[in-house]
Amino acid sequence: MIDNGNARKVVGLSPTRNQSFFGRDIVSVRQFSRDDLTYITQIADEMRALVRRVGATDLLKGHILANLFYEPSTRTSSSFIAAMQRLGGSVIPIHGVQYSSVSKGESLPDTIRTLECYADVIVLRHPEVGASEVAARYATKPIISAGDGVGEHPTQALLDLYTIYSELGALDGLHVAMVGDLKNGRTVHSLARLLRNYDIRMSFVAPEILRLPEALKQEVADAGRAVAETERVEDVIADADVIYVTRVQKERFEDLRQYEAVKGYYEITPELMARAQKKMALMHPLPRVGEIHYDVDDDPRAAYFRQVENGLYVRMALLAAVLGKA
Amino acid sequence: MIDNGNARKVVGLSPTRNQSFFGRDIVSVRQFSRDDLTYITQIADEMRALVRRVGATDLLKGHILANLFYEPSTRTSSSFIAAMQRLGGSVIPIHGVQYSSVSKGESLPDTIRTLECYADVIVLRHPEVGASEVAARYATKPIISAGDGVGEHPTQALLDLYTIYSELGALDGLHVAMVGDLKNGRTVHSLARLLRNYDIRMSFVAPEILRLPEALKQEVADAGRAVAETERVEDVIADADVIYVTRVQKERFEDLRQYEAVKGYYEITPELMARAQKKMALMHPLPRVGEIHYDVDDDPRAAYFRQVENGLYVRMALLAAVLGKA
Amino acid sequence: MIDNGNARKVVGLSPTRNQSFFGRDIVSVRQFSRDDLTYITQIADEMRALVRRVGATDLLKGHILANLFYEPSTRTSSSFIAAMQRLGGSVIPIHGVQYSSVSKGESLPDTIRTLECYADVIVLRHPEVGASEVAARYATKPIISAGDGVGEHPTQALLDLYTIYSELGALDGLHVAMVGDLKNGRTVHSLARLLRNYDIRMSFVAPEILRLPEALKQEVADAGRAVAETERVEDVIADADVIYVTRVQKERFEDLRQYEAVKGYYEITPELMARAQKKMALMHPLPRVGEIHYDVDDDPRAAYFRQVENGLYVRMALLAAVLGKA
Repeated sequence: MIDNGNARKVVGLSPTRNQSFFGRDIVSVRQFSRDDLTYITQIADEMRALVRRVGATDLLKGHILANLFYEPSTRTSSSFIAAMQRLGGSVIPIHGVQYSSVSKGESLPDTIRTLECYADVIVLRHPEVGASEVAARYATKPIISAGDGVGEHPTQALLDLYTIYSELGALDGLHVAMVGDLKNGRTVHSLARLLRNYDIRMSFVAPEILRLPEALKQEVADAGRAVAETERVEDVIADADVIYVTRVQKERFEDLRQYEAVKGYYEITPELMARAQKKMALMHPLPRVGEIHYDVDDDPRAAYFRQVENGLYVRMALLAAVLGKA
Repeated sequence: MIDNGNARKVVGLSPTRNQSFFGRDIVSVRQFSRDDLTYITQIADEMRALVRRVGATDLLKGHILANLFYEPSTRTSSSFIAAMQRLGGSVIPIHGVQYSSVSKGESLPDTIRTLECYADVIVLRHPEVGASEVAARYATKPIISAGDGVGEHPTQALLDLYTIYSELGALDGLHVAMVGDLKNGRTVHSLARLLRNYDIRMSFVAPEILRLPEALKQEVADAGRAVAETERVEDVIADADVIYVTRVQKERFEDLRQYEAVKGYYEITPELMARAQKKMALMHPLPRVGEIHYDVDDDPRAAYFRQVENGLYVRMALLAAVLGKA
Repeated sequence: MIDNGNARKVVGLSPTRNQSFFGRDIVSVRQFSRDDLTYITQIADEMRALVRRVGATDLLKGHILANLFYEPSTRTSSSFIAAMQRLGGSVIPIHGVQYSSVSKGESLPDTIRTLECYADVIVLRHPEVGASEVAARYATKPIISAGDGVGEHPTQALLDLYTIYSELGALDGLHVAMVGDLKNGRTVHSLARLLRNYDIRMSFVAPEILRLPEALKQEVADAGRAVAETERVEDVIADADVIYVTRVQKERFEDLRQYEAVKGYYEITPELMARAQKKMALMHPLPRVGEIHYDVDDDPRAAYFRQVENGLYVRMALLAAVLGKA
């Protein structure tokens, strides 16, 4: 349980329009309007141009990010560190907190109120759902969620969205297929919610026991988006503009024969890619453990490492924006 | 046991007057004269003004701090990292040493002599009493202690002193009450020693079994300072200019009924604060685990988060001073 | 086993002449020609002058190093961090990977391809032989090995070479004695290979069961270098220009009486040093655990801490060189 203590501010989770991001927390994909997303996408584009041209800038010189990870996540923490450094800022890396006294007894609000005495912005990864919103309520400095438990992972969803836009050149009119464990993956949940803002058809491809939660499917449908479900990637491969793959974990199946029966439906191979559109994007939040064959890596449609790179630009955009320097 | 090896220099623990801090080690509160404390307080004031005005400076650009923590202490290490970064310097974070080869076999002097080949100043946290002095004896670069075992934690004492000064506007003439586990807390020991330099009345508020060590009480009295002892905060709450709270740990009591009988005397509540002076400071070295009720946080006299912030300024002052840039 | 996946480039391990280091990987001592070594030595000299004169430079401002350590090595990682920071660059410290998800399942190539989306150069320490070459094959950014298992540790060998040059003023014509566990020590293996490039006589001083592998001795002899073997340091102490000491570990001996019988041959004492040349260098890769008596530390010929310092300059040289800024 997260100790709530006394809240000091109200987190602005309601959609905003064209509002400056300055001082805002980034804790949920629900907080973004379509205008917000356009704004972040534009700044990310600028960051990409900047990094490719000169590598780095002094925009956040003298600013400090506290990178507070209550559970290890090397790739996400590295991405935020690089984003802050390429903006000219510094990072206090607080990893392995699980082994330290911070995790013993002290409430999350006290830890946050301590760190904001040192830093200008706090990135928080926490194993408990809602931890980022609690942190945001107490902090006077901006909080950016780097994932809380099975809850939200908003910056992953934003970089996914930016990757789709950047690979396909548009968002409206697309057919996006999400593949794999759609029941437990916070990544696909966050992305599906974000995509409701666009005229996008969604296909959910999962084994029976790992289907998207009914409530979330309803949310998407309520937003007026067309939704389809199937158990096989081959049903969508020829038509999808985006195939977003996540891992189907053996451990999720009580009956291993069930797993053996379906696992082949979810591995992306060169043979399968041969049936996909000429222009489409194959995405994966990584790490992969067999869901995409290595032989697909050289396919120009394999977008997962560009997706990693986009994470850098989107996080640079967010850091600059909440610190009022975008 | 700390391997002493061959000492290469003598640590200047004797009080100095108006002497430059350049190149000095910070290993004990005993090393500071009243003039030294005034000097650090002034520089800390300047650092606060600087951070509030522009956030950071380039004073220590090109300088490197090796932050060597043999035991985890997220808040202290983060404070030193932020201090160095706000001064424009860089940090080599060496945490989790307990899991690494540094802790296997190599003597502390060899580790220190290695790190000073890379860094300009070394901050050392070590579980053994006296480790900082051993390190200081071998190092040619300045060593700053970040706490060694139940021994000293000089920078905590300095930030406590600075907070008292900064909250009350003066040091001489005050009544400072220290509350909680006064037997085992190195924080209160260091602070009490430092306060001997001022015309300060001290009250020690603790359960019978957690009273201040007799020798330390004598040190304070020998310095000509008035001393009182009691078991209840309510005995001092109306008169004290400073209430400095530390934790009373259940584990210290052999008889839990004893703990239950006294624990209520040491929790600071809004009701208790209602009886305190209008202008006073409630302090705590943090983390707290129930000693101060969350409802007290919004009281303007609750100084513990400003105390955290002051840690940043005092550590900036010390780093700049020992590197000759204050 | 390291997953090889699909290689994307061929690592240039064949000797090169006067070729720019720009974009090259540093994965093996076998890749260096004599000209390469001269080049690195010159840049290291410049870095030393720079650090001693002004402490740091902005040469790599805006550049990021990913310091990826799959096993802890505080001194090597600190050395690379300091090197990057003194060049004005930033570091993503990725330590304790063994506890993180990076080590769970993801292939090394995927981890490397992820990190190169964030960083400009990757330093890799890995417990498996050949890991650096695998990483180099997949990376488009330069990989610098910080040691892979019992395999190579090229930057250690380069700093050893630079130290010999810098202590004795030359390399050709010297007599270098390597002492201790010559069977298992990757440090001496790498150094012996590197020294083949020079007209250097080598003596290998080790207990019978810890002698240099026959194949490596042959490699040295094939290069036309004079080679001698003995079991006692006293056989070489009077003539050697360099005594390079490594640890003889008790655990290597099945029969402890054997260990007790020989261990005295390998401890360097002031008495032994009294018989050495006036101008010579006593070296050790550190950490030491009793191989060199502390009383030797003040001997001007004790070069092991200067060796540590040289590690900084050599790594600065390598970083600047592979990033095209030397």
